[in-house]
Parts: sequence; structure tokens; C-alpha cells
Amino acid sequence: MNEWKKNLRKIKPYVPGEQSKDKDVVKLNANENPYPPSPKAIEAIKSFDAEGLKKYPPSDAAQLKTAIAKHYGVGVENVFLGNGSDDVLALAFQAFFNGGRAIAFPDITYSFYPVWCEMFKIPYRTYRLGEDFRINPEDYREENGGVVIPNPNAPTSIGEGVDFIEKILDYNRDSVVIIDEAYADFGVQSAALFVNEDKYNNLLVTGTFSKSRSLAGLRIGFALGSAELISVLEAVKNSYNSYTIDSLSIAAGTASVEDNEYFREVIDKIIKTRTRLTEALRALGFTVFDSSANFVFATHDTLNMRDMFEYLKTKKVFIRYFNLPRIDNFVRITVGTDEEIDILLREIINYTEEKI
Amino acid sequence: MNEWKKNLRKIKPYVPGEQSKDKDVVKLNANENPYPPSPKAIEAIKSFDAEGLKKYPPSDAAQLKTAIAKHYGVGVENVFLGNGSDDVLALAFQAFFNGGRAIAFPDITYSFYPVWCEMFKIPYRTYRLGEDFRINPEDYREENGGVVIPNPNAPTSIGEGVDFIEKILDYNRDSVVIIDEAYADFGVQSAALFVNEDKYNNLLVTGTFSKSRSLAGLRIGFALGSAELISVLEAVKNSYNSYTIDSLSIAAGTASVEDNEYFREVIDKIIKTRTRLTEALRALGFTVFDSSANFVFATHDTLNMRDMFEYLKTKKVFIRYFNLPRIDNFVRITVGTDEEIDILLREIINYTEEKI
Repeated sequence: MNEWKKNLRKIKPYVPGEQSKDKDVVKLNANENPYPPSPKAIEAIKSFDAEGLKKYPPSDAAQLKTAIAKHYGVGVENVFLGNGSDDVLALAFQAFFNGGRAIAFPDITYSFYPVWCEMFKIPYRTYRLGEDFRINPEDYREENGGVVIPNPNAPTSIGEGVDFIEKILDYNRDSVVIIDEAYADFGVQSAALFVNEDKYNNLLVTGTFSKSRSLAGLRIGFALGSAELISVLEAVKNSYNSYTIDSLSIAAGTASVEDNEYFREVIDKIIKTRTRLTEALRALGFTVFDSSANFVFATHDTLNMRDMFEYLKTKKVFIRYFNLPRIDNFVRITVGTDEEIDILLREIINYTEEKI
Repeated sequence: MNEWKKNLRKIKPYVPGEQSKDKDVVKLNANENPYPPSPKAIEAIKSFDAEGLKKYPPSDAAQLKTAIAKHYGVGVENVFLGNGSDDVLALAFQAFFNGGRAIAFPDITYSFYPVWCEMFKIPYRTYRLGEDFRINPEDYREENGGVVIPNPNAPTSIGEGVDFIEKILDYNRDSVVIIDEAYADFGVQSAALFVNEDKYNNLLVTGTFSKSRSLAGLRIGFALGSAELISVLEAVKNSYNSYTIDSLSIAAGTASVEDNEYFREVIDKIIKTRTRLTEALRALGFTVFDSSANFVFATHDTLNMRDMFEYLKTKKVFIRYFNLPRIDNFVRITVGTDEEIDILLREIINYTEEKI
């Protein structure tokens, strides 16, 4: 073996949902939004001065930061931007979790958290979700080097209220607490309301434009926190890559945030379809958690979910299956359009009829 | 002090060239290209199906990888993409430099290298440029944990030939060797020609669309290397952020690579202006290295370069000054349009006349 191969990084990466180039596929496996971005975001791209791309983006991206700050009622100095919320979280892990103590997060959650811990050599400890698959805030009273809580949690879809967040914050005055709100717009109140409170200057809230704002293709993530936390995050970002967010994303993202009416409209449609999907699955004998996200998490007492997942794939309906302890008989289904959900339900009915 | 503050990352970030929102500024401080991107790249943005931004980008970005592979005469499996070449380099440092041994690079070079070493806790050793400010390949015969050589070097602008690269590779069969070609299109032969040779499977060549392709605003970087190196880089990237490059960048970047005629035309114009700028500065008594990049590096026996840099700023002409050992009486000037260089030269003449 070549000597240099000994110095290569050995790591098991995160595996995202399958992609397909087949246009006929009903793609309900990556929690993408089935509706297009705001027409104003599309217009911002069409009318963008593309000749200006010869220059680097403004490194402060002030325009987009200002729009986000206004939307959440915080200051511009409380906003951080990144290349998708994965970039924001990866930088936050590096910025805030430098003690020797293990950081804490649930055992069933976004599977990128342990990957980042491995990548950045951060020790971690997971806490088992309750039998109802909810996070027990009392678990997070134990000493730790940081806390990461997704709200709503993924893939369970279960969201928690402001009281729950306040408990987590009160129990963890000595650690940075990250509330990952990738799916929050679909059903929970944002923890952003605590950002301007002096006593919670250890809180970082993260979000993304990939879900509720239909801009997964543009890669925009953000974080909200005290000016002190944000300045550390900026220093770490500037030690990695000074320009992570491109000029077109800044323009389109700003237009998206400023179009609140369209934003509310899309979310309302998804919530309606989610209710219909949840009820239809329950009527077919599935157990489905009450979802606060743009996906549902479902299981069945007698049907094999992995088998159903594979069956649906042959019918060009992609959903997500995780071969992991405790959830290996669950599927995660993104809330698509009503038409997509009709196709899904028809294929699930075909499947259940074949099996009975 | 709050307990959590002890775990914050303390780091001194890289400082990029100043930005200005003032449209009148002649901006020759960030090595941006003064000409717009290929009309075909602009057309790719205008005609892009922006509704499709609701989906994540194709994670393999096959279209852009294929275009780059064809341009350099390598296989698709030899191409890696990132969010600007800073992202590519940051990932490469994490992927390849995991031994305990110090990695090696020149003392005067891209100032992000030591920042990444600090960030990822990689030990490093720098080798002093010769009195002629060139890299001495014999320095890199010493045992090391990796080698990083920019060609041409920045901010010196000096490029080296294929023989030099081959020496570096032959002396370093036990380390990964990164050749950073951010500016290579302006004057050196790419080391990509060695990528497909079995004996150099430890070579990584990095590049960017921000300079020769006038797409700094879109953030596209790439690397070329053996399939084995690229696969490790992909695994590290997928442990950090699965989707670093957005759908619009993939479309515009592909169109840019496919428009080789425009690419050559822009480079030829810049080289012509570079020659004119170099000769004009020399006629004014400056010492200017022969540049292989889209900038020149200049000094003067009797004039104070820092003072001239500050003077030019008051005249709205931005160039770059580094307050660093050995180069603290140099300035780095980006090759702009002929009109921009005329303004620069006029102001430099005004300055020299004031001082004499």
C-alpha cells in the first residue's frame, strides 16, 4: 500500500434520499416541497444582472440577512447564513462544541448529527425517545457539552411547544443549545422568540429555505442567535470558506422572505394535504403520528414496511425507509401535492390488497 | 463568564479583499475577472426552469462533472465539485492530511492554508521562497505529511512549468500533493495531465470558476485526481454537507465550460492588458514579476507601497496590500479592463509626481 493512503480520512458519510432522473417518479422521499418557489423569487432570478456574477457575492449578504431578521423580529447581528442548513449545523458543531464533554441529542433523530460528531471528533450521548416517540426534556438535565434538539423531530414528525423549549433552555444554562427548525414552519412556534432574551444568549436556532420555501435547489440555510454566538460562527465560517452563499441565492432568497402571503398559502395547502394523508392512512389501519412537519411517519401492525417501501419503488413511488433499531417497521412519507398523494394511496391500497 | 463560553472555538479567520457598494470604485483587489461570464452561462440562468428549484440539486452534478472531465481530458470519476475552491481545499485538507506529520507549503502563499491548518489542527511547516521569490522544489524532498503548491503562486504571480510539478511529484510519492491552480488558466500548463498516470495517484489538482470563468458570484470549485482520492473526498463531503453546489450553478457552470471560444478570448484579453500594465509599471520604476496570473505583484525601490495603496483608496482605486514579512513593500494589482488600468496608471502617476 502507498504510504500516503495511511493519512486518508476513514469515515462513513450520511446517505441522503435517492434521486431519480425519471420524470414519472412520484418523489416523496426527500421532504421537498411539491409547490414551486414564490413567483417573486423566480422573478428575482430572471431579472438578475448575470453579468455581475463576475464579482464575489457581498460577503455580509446584508440584503438577505435583513429580510430574515425582519421576518423573525430579531436584529441583523442575530442572523447567520450558510450553504443550506447542513452547512450551518456543521459550522455550529465546530464553533460551539469544543469542550471534552459529550453533547446530547435524541437516539432517533436527524442522522447527520452523529456523522458530524464523528467528523469533528466531538463526543456525544443519545437519549432514548419515550415509548410515545417523544423527546423527554428531563433527560437533558444531565451535564453535557451541548444540546441539539430538532423541533419538530425527524423522522418522527412530532413537534413540541414553547414550554418544552423553555425547559430545555432552563436546564442547560451552561451549554450551547441548538434548536434545529428545518421543519418548524409546518407546525411549531419558532424558538426565535427567545433569541433576544439576555438569559438565553446560549441559544442557536437553525432553519432552511429547502422545505417551506421550496428552494432546496438553491442551498440556503440560516441561524438565529445572540450577537456573541453569531460572531463566533462567522469567525469559524471565515476560517473555512468566506463566500458560501452565492449572489443568485441572496437575490432569490430575499424575494422569497418578502413574499409572506405566498409562503402562508403553500404551508396551508401542505397542512391540508397532510391531514388528508394522515386520515387516509389511519383508515387503512396504519398508525401515524400527528405531524408538525411536511412529512408523516407511519407504521402498521401487520404489514411489513420495508416490503411496502420496496413495492412502491417498483411502482415509481419513492418514500423513505430507515433500517434502524425501533423504527425498522416505519416509513417516512413526504406530503406531496394532492395528486401525488392520490397516486401513493392507490398504490398502498393495491399493496394491502395483494397482502391480504 | 457563562460556562458555555469556554467551549467556543477561538480562531483568527482569513480576511478577504475589501468590498465596496460604491459603483464608482475601480476594484482591483480581489482578482475578479473584469469581463462578464460567457453569454451561454448567462443564457443558462435566464432559461433555467426556476420552478425546479423546489428539488434538491442532483447530488452527483453529473452534467457539470462531465463537462469539466472533457475539458481536462480525464474521467468523470476523476472530478470533484465544491462550493468554490476554498470549499474544495478545506475538504481536501480534512480528507488527506490526517497523519501526525507536518504538511509543507511556501512561506509566502495563499493565506488561507495556515488558517485551515489551524482550523483542522493539522501541523504545518513553511519553506522560504528564494530571493527571486520562486519556490525551490528541492525544499519539498524533506519528509512531510502532505504538500500544497499553488501554481502560479499568489500573491507573487509566478508560475512554474511541468518539469517543476513533476519534480514535486517525484519527491513526494508518500504524501498527497495538492496543486492549487486557481490562476493556472492565465499562464501555466495544468497538472491535470498527470492525473491519469498510475504513478501519480496521490495528486490532487484544484481549480475555480471565480477567476478565468468570471463566475465568482456563483461559487464553483473543482478538483481533479485519481478515482481513489476523489472517492475519499466525496465521503468527507458527504459527512459535511451533501449538496454544496446549487442547481443554477450546475447549469451556468456547464454552459461556461462548453463555451471554450469565449473562455480563450477573455483570457487573451487579460494577458494583453497584463503585459501593458507590467510594462507601464516598469517604465515608472517599479519592479514587477513576470505574471502567470490575472494580477501583478509589484514593488518600488523608493516609494512606500503601503502609502500608495492608501492613496489609491482615497482615489477610489482598490488594490491589495499585505502587511507581511518580506512583502510589506509590495502591492498586488488585479488585471482589470484597459479602461480600469488607465485610471489606475493615471492615479499612480499622480502619486509618484506628488512624492518626487
